[in-house]
Amino acid sequence: MNATAVESIEPVAAKPAATNPLRLVCRSMREKRSLVQVGTACFGGPQPVVIAGPCSVESYEQTRLAADAVKAAGAGVLRGGAFKPRTSPYDFQGLGVEGLEILARIRHETGLPVVSEVMSTDDIDIVAGHVDMLQVGARNMQNFALLRRLSKCDRPILLKRGPASTVKEWLLAAEYLLAGGNDQVVLCERGVRSYDPELRNTFDLAGMALARQLTHLPVIADPSHATGRRDLIRSMSRAALAAGADGLMIEIHPQPSAALSDADQALDLASFSLVMDDAAAISAL
Amino acid sequence: MNATAVESIEPVAAKPAATNPLRLVCRSMREKRSLVQVGTACFGGPQPVVIAGPCSVESYEQTRLAADAVKAAGAGVLRGGAFKPRTSPYDFQGLGVEGLEILARIRHETGLPVVSEVMSTDDIDIVAGHVDMLQVGARNMQNFALLRRLSKCDRPILLKRGPASTVKEWLLAAEYLLAGGNDQVVLCERGVRSYDPELRNTFDLAGMALARQLTHLPVIADPSHATGRRDLIRSMSRAALAAGADGLMIEIHPQPSAALSDADQALDLASFSLVMDDAAAISAL
Amino acid sequence: MNATAVESIEPVAAKPAATNPLRLVCRSMREKRSLVQVGTACFGGPQPVVIAGPCSVESYEQTRLAADAVKAAGAGVLRGGAFKPRTSPYDFQGLGVEGLEILARIRHETGLPVVSEVMSTDDIDIVAGHVDMLQVGARNMQNFALLRRLSKCDRPILLKRGPASTVKEWLLAAEYLLAGGNDQVVLCERGVRSYDPELRNTFDLAGMALARQLTHLPVIADPSHATGRRDLIRSMSRAALAAGADGLMIEIHPQPSAALSDADQALDLASFSLVMDDAAAISAL
Amino acid sequence: MNATAVESIEPVAAKPAATNPLRLVCRSMREKRSLVQVGTACFGGPQPVVIAGPCSVESYEQTRLAADAVKAAGAGVLRGGAFKPRTSPYDFQGLGVEGLEILARIRHETGLPVVSEVMSTDDIDIVAGHVDMLQVGARNMQNFALLRRLSKCDRPILLKRGPASTVKEWLLAAEYLLAGGNDQVVLCERGVRSYDPELRNTFDLAGMALARQLTHLPVIADPSHATGRRDLIRSMSRAALAAGADGLMIEIHPQPSAALSDADQALDLASFSLVMDDAAAISAL
Repeated sequence: MNATAVESIEPVAAKPAATNPLRLVCRSMREKRSLVQVGTACFGGPQPVVIAGPCSVESYEQTRLAADAVKAAGAGVLRGGAFKPRTSPYDFQGLGVEGLEILARIRHETGLPVVSEVMSTDDIDIVAGHVDMLQVGARNMQNFALLRRLSKCDRPILLKRGPASTVKEWLLAAEYLLAGGNDQVVLCERGVRSYDPELRNTFDLAGMALARQLTHLPVIADPSHATGRRDLIRSMSRAALAAGADGLMIEIHPQPSAALSDADQALDLASFSLVMDDAAAISAL
Repeated sequence: MNATAVESIEPVAAKPAATNPLRLVCRSMREKRSLVQVGTACFGGPQPVVIAGPCSVESYEQTRLAADAVKAAGAGVLRGGAFKPRTSPYDFQGLGVEGLEILARIRHETGLPVVSEVMSTDDIDIVAGHVDMLQVGARNMQNFALLRRLSKCDRPILLKRGPASTVKEWLLAAEYLLAGGNDQVVLCERGVRSYDPELRNTFDLAGMALARQLTHLPVIADPSHATGRRDLIRSMSRAALAAGADGLMIEIHPQPSAALSDADQALDLASFSLVMDDAAAISAL
Repeated sequence: MNATAVESIEPVAAKPAATNPLRLVCRSMREKRSLVQVGTACFGGPQPVVIAGPCSVESYEQTRLAADAVKAAGAGVLRGGAFKPRTSPYDFQGLGVEGLEILARIRHETGLPVVSEVMSTDDIDIVAGHVDMLQVGARNMQNFALLRRLSKCDRPILLKRGPASTVKEWLLAAEYLLAGGNDQVVLCERGVRSYDPELRNTFDLAGMALARQLTHLPVIADPSHATGRRDLIRSMSRAALAAGADGLMIEIHPQPSAALSDADQALDLASFSLVMDDAAAISAL
Repeated sequence: MNATAVESIEPVAAKPAATNPLRLVCRSMREKRSLVQVGTACFGGPQPVVIAGPCSVESYEQTRLAADAVKAAGAGVLRGGAFKPRTSPYDFQGLGVEGLEILARIRHETGLPVVSEVMSTDDIDIVAGHVDMLQVGARNMQNFALLRRLSKCDRPILLKRGPASTVKEWLLAAEYLLAGGNDQVVLCERGVRSYDPELRNTFDLAGMALARQLTHLPVIADPSHATGRRDLIRSMSRAALAAGADGLMIEIHPQPSAALSDADQALDLASFSLVMDDAAAISAL
């Protein structure tokens, strides 16, 4: 067999890269891992930061109960969706600005910093006006118009990994943010597409660990979306921290079975405190 | 083993759906398949429509040469990227408005209808002002803010399938457009994530055929992105049409090796005319 | 960023291969595509060969009815499973030797050549004693002990692609057969693992076409297993032939709803004759 | 939209299962988790068991050095491949019986129990005659002929998960062993097919944890094959144990860069002892 035939089996795309596109996010760019401060919480430091809260803000009462549990358990940041990306246009789409106002009120009352998703360039100002950190959802990881605009925003960004993105694509999405001037970026692994009907996604902790090797940015993990099953969240939270995650993002609900979105994966408040106990034990190692 | 244990292996999400979310796109909604008119081209009718052109508009000359080949070969629509979604912020991002102006000029000179991608809600008006049809790229398939805005736009939309979306998720993205009032929608299969390094994506022709069974909207196929290899485009174009595709989308370039983006998958103009000959033969069946 | 860091993102396995492992199967090894004769059928020639029959041999009557339909429709080879690989040990495992005897009787009565799966080195002699061609199932594609033994067998082999194998891995499985001395090998694409619950597998026709470019061996396609849905078999049969497949493998059943295995994908006999009409039309191009 | 259309989007296969096929492996079958004794090591008990050793037995010296490190670090079982499943017939296939003899000698000298892969029904007796535990490799997970024969063997079995199998398919492969009479089975997660070129496989720790919920059998994890990168093995070993794994399987080599197979993923002996220190710390929690 001749050389031409040998080459024909090689990937078409396998050219030597002329330049490396991972410039600003690359770990070798900084002496130390980056710290990202969000209110009273600091991502990237010695203590992992836990973000918790309901999938969707449904009411003041529901979110306040969750926030109290977040605070009581020692978690650092409250999450809550006001603008919800939903596969179907007929599913509950979030309370919108009303949801943001609930978050802002609870933020004020509890002192907890808050993260919420922004789905559109049009909403950046209003979301940034109510919360401490802006989340880019998995389905928007390569919404480059959104990334460019957020690179000019003075709020820290939580960048979730796309549902079928490679580690490199994920880091390059962060590169858009840093290239535009915003280096307050926390990455969040939330599972990649799975072929197994038992699991919502495949939790890619090795991809998370690899990302932490390749970048100086903090990297956290979301076992709620990654598994879609509340019965796996405790063990996967332990696993993520043991693998070196800089934090966790966990969905909790005062009454999971009544949740308006993602009910199967929401932890009740008592189970959440067990997760926090585990987290403390792992972190102490 | 008891019933509880049996249930524990069932998917958490396997609840009976209370309502079917595929409302307006569902095939049973209309007596006949929908027709989508784009300039002189009509998607969904008896003749498949071929969209062809360069990945990126690089210059007037390059795009005009491609357009002449498109027209000479009997293809119906010219494509060309002005705003380019690129994995890396350091890759060529397209000529932007200058690219749109080139497309508009060639559209005027040749009479060919033109499709180009819109990446941001901010760009809808400017893109719609220069071309006939707006493309939503694979990475934006679930950019719901963009979909909502495009549902209020009076231009036909080419909705590419997300790189790891299910057929149902793809149809639900179209449902956002129809629910908002725009039923001029053409779907485009372009491959799903592959684990095989020989292929850029896995061309999911059965997913394309299934989509055509489930919706009244036209569905076309893009063998260029689906394979990433020009040596497979001819056979995959034949396969797509034989599977019932309402059309094709093919990247061509006057000088593929000099293309600024996706050079490996661009066909030269002579090869493209062979694809068109095949298409005519298959369509005649 | 320095060169070391650049390299750290490159795949660990991306070493230049010292030698090409595709030796005997490589297309450049032979001037012409190989022909594989199975009874009266010839794979790799100008006419595609259709293999059809029931998933499992359930009785003489059921198999004979299917065989008559196979013959009447002009298909070249009868298939039928006697030893069935089943995910669960409690599912119907096939009639075993009794099934082989039924196949041998019908082979004698109808003159149709017969293919049946061999799952174990122990069964090679008995299967080879009753049928014309031995099938290696998808789950055994990398059962190297079986491949080695079959490489010493004087029967043609039908080698199905593994459910998550790359094209290269599939060709290397064939290389085991040729390296051991058996070059009567036909490859069969049957779909790769899918994340979409609507489809049993993802039919990888581009992988099939790529395999045909890389090897001189005949390559056929099995739309029944690849889709798992009888409503897609006709369009996918057309697509496979248009993509250049050297043949098809299709499951049919006199009464699909009563099939003991894979009922959802079995075609009834009337639908099968439509598939054969399409095949003839495509082949005539 | 009518009911028929609603149903058409539902998976074809979504029938209510008449009977649950997970009978003997199901966790509810036993009051307590099963213990599997392999020489002096006990899988399924309070202490995780670490299996370590070279990918391939290359020589007495190489394997003995590894075995000494295994023992010194407090790992419980020595691994070493004598019969190697290789994608290409031209790759090193293992030392065969000579490799088994080396393993038996070192087993005798060190007192370490030994596990080695069996690839063929023909080799069961000879492998069982030299080692304590027989491994079924990932590519043979659904080699049902091999599973049936091993179900009659009086040796414990290490059943690796197939490279694209679901958790349920994996447990059903174990069901073949138990149904045939061998309940000395340890399951091993080793990663599933990945689309990311940076990683050899995707380490599915949530699938591992789910398997442990569904079965009473011990479940361990192999971070070496799951990642293919030695720089991830330490963090992934911690993660697996934190997720509840009953043990680990790790490839080590006295001189990794000289390994005849899987060199990129082999740990050197010093790094291995760090992994063991971590394991002890996690287990103590």
